[in-house]
Amino acid sequence: MWIICADLEGVFVPEIWINVAKKTGIDELKLTTRDIKDYDQLMRYRLEILDKHNLKLQDIQEVINTLQPLPGALDFIREIRKLTRFAIVSDTFVEFAQPLMDKLENPFLLCHSLETDSTGRITNYLLRQSDPKRKTVEAFKSLKYNVVAFGDSYNDVTMLQAADRGILFCPPDNVKADFPQYPVVTDLQSLKEELIKIVKQ
Amino acid sequence: MWIICADLEGVFVPEIWINVAKKTGIDELKLTTRDIKDYDQLMRYRLEILDKHNLKLQDIQEVINTLQPLPGALDFIREIRKLTRFAIVSDTFVEFAQPLMDKLENPFLLCHSLETDSTGRITNYLLRQSDPKRKTVEAFKSLKYNVVAFGDSYNDVTMLQAADRGILFCPPDNVKADFPQYPVVTDLQSLKEELIKIVKQ
Repeated sequence: MWIICADLEGVFVPEIWINVAKKTGIDELKLTTRDIKDYDQLMRYRLEILDKHNLKLQDIQEVINTLQPLPGALDFIREIRKLTRFAIVSDTFVEFAQPLMDKLENPFLLCHSLETDSTGRITNYLLRQSDPKRKTVEAFKSLKYNVVAFGDSYNDVTMLQAADRGILFCPPDNVKADFPQYPVVTDLQSLKEELIKIVKQ
Repeated sequence: MWIICADLEGVFVPEIWINVAKKTGIDELKLTTRDIKDYDQLMRYRLEILDKHNLKLQDIQEVINTLQPLPGALDFIREIRKLTRFAIVSDTFVEFAQPLMDKLENPFLLCHSLETDSTGRITNYLLRQSDPKRKTVEAFKSLKYNVVAFGDSYNDVTMLQAADRGILFCPPDNVKADFPQYPVVTDLQSLKEELIKIVKQ
């Protein structure tokens, strides 16, 4: 019996922070871990910027609600959920993901969360645990499932490594070069075919 | 962050074996662990009876496909999936559950499976692991989730015990008497209200 563990951003939905930056016109929100390597420092900076612009959680959710899942994502998820167990394992925050999850018919999503005060101001971010993608795969393995995992980036690699089978989906060249052991697929149709082959073995 | 772990039969769908027995008119399939205490012996007997009547997996699935989820189940699941993480943890077999899962929009289901040969004859049953309900709760706890679990029967008790919060849903009197520590709810609307209270704490 197989569980499929999938990344979210870049696979089923667009990158959330980048699109919030674009939609709000706040360039400072475009910074990523490529610009500020320390994730905690980056997140504190982002929350400061939101404060500076007096943006509450609901404002951000309204922005995110104008985003759409990537083409083909909903059909893919519908078919995969009929096929076998399917979990999305993401480094995003559940409050940000929710508007997009609604559009994807609320698949099973494991991710981080945000802390807000009574006014809706985002006061903190709460990481579920360290290395959550790897630990999620290990938890499913403890339930005697085989796991096939896919994602597009460095933060997916420990998940791919812990899984029985790993696939890179549209990875950037550096990820592809650094992890040549993983097959690469570049569209959801090929990914689905690959997953069906694995799950029906 | 909370995960809700739910039982399946008796909560969202009718008891599957009993209804297969009714629909096929094969009285021998009505036996339960109340009649044959040893589960392995019961399952081997059931598979023998299916063989005797030349019933293949597909035949049973067609029978199960005539069953409907219990009233209110789909609406409940839709709302709960918007609210938080939701997993069904069942002692049924995924091949039996699937026709009903389709009608419930394929929530995340962890359960057992069946082995079939090339003709579709059910040759064996494969239990995912021992005490799977308890272990599933423990796996989600290892991912730093709080777990609220509910079910209707003895096989749910280790799941309720492992969870942070447990609820009995429409339990028979003996279960209720044996486990007075758990709140009892008797309809999906009250269950939903109880879950919302817990998850929003």
